[in-house]
Amino acid sequence: MTTQPIAGLLLFPGMTQLDLTGPYEVIARLPGWRTEIVAKTLAPVTTDKGLVITPSMDFAGAPQFDLIIVPGGPGTDDALTDAETVEFVRVQAAGAKHIFGICTGSLLLGAAGLLKGKRAGGHWAARDLLTQFGAIVSDARMTKDGNIYTAGGVTSGIDMALQVVADLAGEDVAKQIQLQIEYDPAPPFNAGTPFVAPPEIVARARAAGAGRRKIREDAVALAADTLSRKG
Amino acid sequence: MTTQPIAGLLLFPGMTQLDLTGPYEVIARLPGWRTEIVAKTLAPVTTDKGLVITPSMDFAGAPQFDLIIVPGGPGTDDALTDAETVEFVRVQAAGAKHIFGICTGSLLLGAAGLLKGKRAGGHWAARDLLTQFGAIVSDARMTKDGNIYTAGGVTSGIDMALQVVADLAGEDVAKQIQLQIEYDPAPPFNAGTPFVAPPEIVARARAAGAGRRKIREDAVALAADTLSRKG
Repeated sequence: MTTQPIAGLLLFPGMTQLDLTGPYEVIARLPGWRTEIVAKTLAPVTTDKGLVITPSMDFAGAPQFDLIIVPGGPGTDDALTDAETVEFVRVQAAGAKHIFGICTGSLLLGAAGLLKGKRAGGHWAARDLLTQFGAIVSDARMTKDGNIYTAGGVTSGIDMALQVVADLAGEDVAKQIQLQIEYDPAPPFNAGTPFVAPPEIVARARAAGAGRRKIREDAVALAADTLSRKG
Repeated sequence: MTTQPIAGLLLFPGMTQLDLTGPYEVIARLPGWRTEIVAKTLAPVTTDKGLVITPSMDFAGAPQFDLIIVPGGPGTDDALTDAETVEFVRVQAAGAKHIFGICTGSLLLGAAGLLKGKRAGGHWAARDLLTQFGAIVSDARMTKDGNIYTAGGVTSGIDMALQVVADLAGEDVAKQIQLQIEYDPAPPFNAGTPFVAPPEIVARARAAGAGRRKIREDAVALAADTLSRKG
């Protein structure tokens, strides 16, 4: 009897819920796979805007995942410097066949030492910080280097999840899931990246994120230092 | 002092979580608004693929929402014929300034008597059933008739949520949110509607959904009958 492959999505306080729930909707439809939501404890977790999600397992109870999925969001900046979380990601990633980071989740992959010399992307307002973990920064919405998939900010996790499914189960399976979730996107505006958004909107978004950026820079510096001292 | 406007998203068992979490990510960023997740009781709710979400309030404790948001998914077919849920939607919609249905959530709006003579859309595999509630079916990804917004299947709720934000707070606010969630979609495949997906993929998706379709037809017929007997 073959063991059923398992996809595990990391849940942590203050994360951006769509970083997790977007890919979840795609991955949970992978035929033959089991999908789990893993957090440090079994307690419900409050995400950055208030949505409360309950994990299906805790770190201690988690089996080795075949696919480990690491979302991001403001809470990443605490997760980055939390030894238990970083170690969980490192150990799971070492045994997983595929690793998938979304948004600033790639910073957590970096903190776990997984991105040295690898091409990786992340949220547009944070991905330059990946260099501190030895990564080569990609501005692409979807980046794949070896068995490491990284997506840009938030919604890009949906696009990348379809690519992950195609690689794991074939393009026809990915297309059927795309059809089921009617993913034929048609944003009413064209402002989804700093390259296409009006400059004043980009300036406003950067200003709104300036406080978070400062916290993040400090967290990344500390995490990078911790990683370098591990060798 | 002005009362803070409230957006309320309906949560029910067996719903498709991305129908809720996609729009939530956009709406929860509306400046000056409060976003609530409302369910029949305060107990955590299991969605169709297993993700567990905790409501922030129950029906009895809910204030009048300014924007009522009704997602869909397989669980809609139970919600459609649940008198308490249908009545909650009807009463909230009567007092709300804006009504927003996603996916098969529009069937629930129909069951609540809100779509008579209105143009409305929904998931491609179910929207034809809207005629039974007196609606004029729209195949568009986003449909607006008066104060009623309806979106197609699952992911279309993200597009529509940006339009709702633009109408409530202006296009610049919508664009800033779009940038924050890096919504510059680039699906790796072109299979998001039955109009563009390969015919064999459409056939496979229809076959996979045949059992659900039968349950849904029965639920809609019952809900339409209940509605007609109310006058």
